[in-house]
Amino acid sequence: MKVRLITIGDEILIGQIVDTNSAYIAQHLNKIGLEVDEILSIKDDFQTIVETFERISKESDIIITTGGLGPTKDDKTKHALCEFLQTELVMDEAVLNFLEERYQKLNRPLNELNRNQALLPKGSIALPNPLGTAPGIWTEFDGKLIINLQGVPFEMKNLLKTEVIPRLQQKFSLPFVIHRFLSVSHFPESELAITLNDWEDHLPNNISVAYLPERSKVKLRLTGKGENKEQIKAQLEQEVQKLIPLLGERLDSTTKDSIAVILGDLLRELKLTISTAESCTGGEIASMLTSVSGSSEYFYGSVVSYATEVKKNVLNVSEKTIETHTVVSEEVAKEMAEGVRNLLKTELSVSTTGVAGPAKGEDGKEVGTVWVAFGNQEIVQTKSYFFPYLEREDFIAQVARLALQNVFEFVKEHYS
Amino acid sequence: MKVRLITIGDEILIGQIVDTNSAYIAQHLNKIGLEVDEILSIKDDFQTIVETFERISKESDIIITTGGLGPTKDDKTKHALCEFLQTELVMDEAVLNFLEERYQKLNRPLNELNRNQALLPKGSIALPNPLGTAPGIWTEFDGKLIINLQGVPFEMKNLLKTEVIPRLQQKFSLPFVIHRFLSVSHFPESELAITLNDWEDHLPNNISVAYLPERSKVKLRLTGKGENKEQIKAQLEQEVQKLIPLLGERLDSTTKDSIAVILGDLLRELKLTISTAESCTGGEIASMLTSVSGSSEYFYGSVVSYATEVKKNVLNVSEKTIETHTVVSEEVAKEMAEGVRNLLKTELSVSTTGVAGPAKGEDGKEVGTVWVAFGNQEIVQTKSYFFPYLEREDFIAQVARLALQNVFEFVKEHYS
Repeated sequence: MKVRLITIGDEILIGQIVDTNSAYIAQHLNKIGLEVDEILSIKDDFQTIVETFERISKESDIIITTGGLGPTKDDKTKHALCEFLQTELVMDEAVLNFLEERYQKLNRPLNELNRNQALLPKGSIALPNPLGTAPGIWTEFDGKLIINLQGVPFEMKNLLKTEVIPRLQQKFSLPFVIHRFLSVSHFPESELAITLNDWEDHLPNNISVAYLPERSKVKLRLTGKGENKEQIKAQLEQEVQKLIPLLGERLDSTTKDSIAVILGDLLRELKLTISTAESCTGGEIASMLTSVSGSSEYFYGSVVSYATEVKKNVLNVSEKTIETHTVVSEEVAKEMAEGVRNLLKTELSVSTTGVAGPAKGEDGKEVGTVWVAFGNQEIVQTKSYFFPYLEREDFIAQVARLALQNVFEFVKEHYS
Repeated sequence: MKVRLITIGDEILIGQIVDTNSAYIAQHLNKIGLEVDEILSIKDDFQTIVETFERISKESDIIITTGGLGPTKDDKTKHALCEFLQTELVMDEAVLNFLEERYQKLNRPLNELNRNQALLPKGSIALPNPLGTAPGIWTEFDGKLIINLQGVPFEMKNLLKTEVIPRLQQKFSLPFVIHRFLSVSHFPESELAITLNDWEDHLPNNISVAYLPERSKVKLRLTGKGENKEQIKAQLEQEVQKLIPLLGERLDSTTKDSIAVILGDLLRELKLTISTAESCTGGEIASMLTSVSGSSEYFYGSVVSYATEVKKNVLNVSEKTIETHTVVSEEVAKEMAEGVRNLLKTELSVSTTGVAGPAKGEDGKEVGTVWVAFGNQEIVQTKSYFFPYLEREDFIAQVARLALQNVFEFVKEHYS
């Protein structure tokens, strides 16, 4: 089954927005055993859309588009679909009724452009979209399927979950695709590949592996395919068991994905609590921790001490330490970690102070300099990093990840 | 000039990671007048990569790929490029020397897989990559250009800025593409389109407009193209001046993009300072504020009070208020905003308390319920929202945006 996703809209092609829709759709299709072969982003230009449909439809079974379903002149998906199908738009009375009711409730007139949202290609089915005005569109022709969804993520996501996925599962009998992730630290990718060479050569045909390098880590993704879900799971588990001795102590996790999840599981298991004191990361560590559902069990909170006054008045960092060592220093990082742990009454804490750039810090420290402190009441450890090449946003994300990674290693060393 | 980007790697197609590289590249190409026609994500499968090069090269002048340049078996870009070019890999001595020095410094042996990173297709040029091991690859053939870059974002970004962009500017004489953004609130997209219909019909040929709807906002993007940078800028300014009276009070900004930037500019101009007290947004508002370079001028910091104890002990929310109204309530939001403003000594503050889900809050409040409080010493206003359809991550992002939007409107109303 060949599946292709098409994102329609110039905003992706000029890099104004990042296409998060495709990853979301691919992930959810994957869960029901549909693999995406190709993702395309094209201009919202009538001719381009028609030509893309013509080219792609020959080599695809399912095409899912996002974007270009709105009411304005730059929304051309529906018209291009009609041209491609050599059909015309007809009024869908059910959608029109829905729109009339919706606008009545909103106490707004249903203008011509809104009415046109109820026009659908003849033979297509409307996928009800309670969160917006335009419906999704489901079109079957010549044994193929085209699905048009909204570009606005929350409308698209809801339509995908409530309409598209159930309909796809009903229409096709699908194989299972299951992934397992392993996370490895301090193992250079090429060295790892040599270590796993023999194992890789003996993998069953329906299991594949991919190396996903991050800075100090590599993630391994094992993918199994087949008709029998339990059997694939067992196969994957078998391979993971073979990998455990090969990876040794550098294996961080055999089940989960992000460091916030891995650390969260460990903290929950050990019944530990944590707080963060953030200067240069500006709340990103807190954000990462709270992005995990159920994190309130171990994450108490954070003080984002962007201003020096906040470091002094709220986190109790001493004036003298700042004067002697400047705000971006090992000593201040330590006092921040201690301060937040005392204030929020947690077992553990982690702090950051650094210069995210692009301008130098007040104290003249170079852009890319950062101190991280982490520990408990007995021990506070520190690490410094220097990432002069990273852009502000990447610097913040990288430091936040490393901060959590350090806490993870600290907990493994001192509590297990 | 036809430009295509190709992202190579299964991790995008299974939705494991979001393709942020393409947006970054597109944005930077755009700045030097190169427009991307299409973005493709394909499997890291040898045959697929070769076939894609064959198909795409016919209709493109510049192809930029990311991914698949690493040392492991699932990295196939270089080999596929050779197959497509009908050439062979040859050792690049300069790259090999660089690798030898690098590994000596790291005190690690240069293994076979690492040495292979210095192999390049015959006739290709290595783009030095000081942040990694594999170089980028620059290949010209038949008047076309193929550039292969890393998939790891920080390596790719550095190569793009230091090598690719300067070389492209040297090689081509490029037109200018300039964008202007306007941000409009509380103006439904279809109503806006009708209001602007006449204006849109009279746009010069080299200026186009796009509507980019968000929840309570629409962004308008004007794009101008031409040989004369100053002339395009003047044309765009002229169109913006025509739009100002048409959009009236609902126009938020004629220059900038995100609410964090717009609000930041306003706070800086009025010399106001702000702090945040975040429960359900878990530091996301602080993150958004600090994502803007220079935000330390107006953003003092934040207390992320995820645990109820932190709300009480640090933010001084009264036990009685929590008992009477529960933690997700208008009253608690107010006291949080007051608490953080007093603690961090800022003029303004904003707070959030709600249930991001997927599990219900401790006090049984429905998932998607949230209270936002914002104001200064004299006035604290509140708003409640209910977003039961949003996923955790989107809920947090949406509430954070709305929180800043409310502060923006508060400041406009009370300070200007």
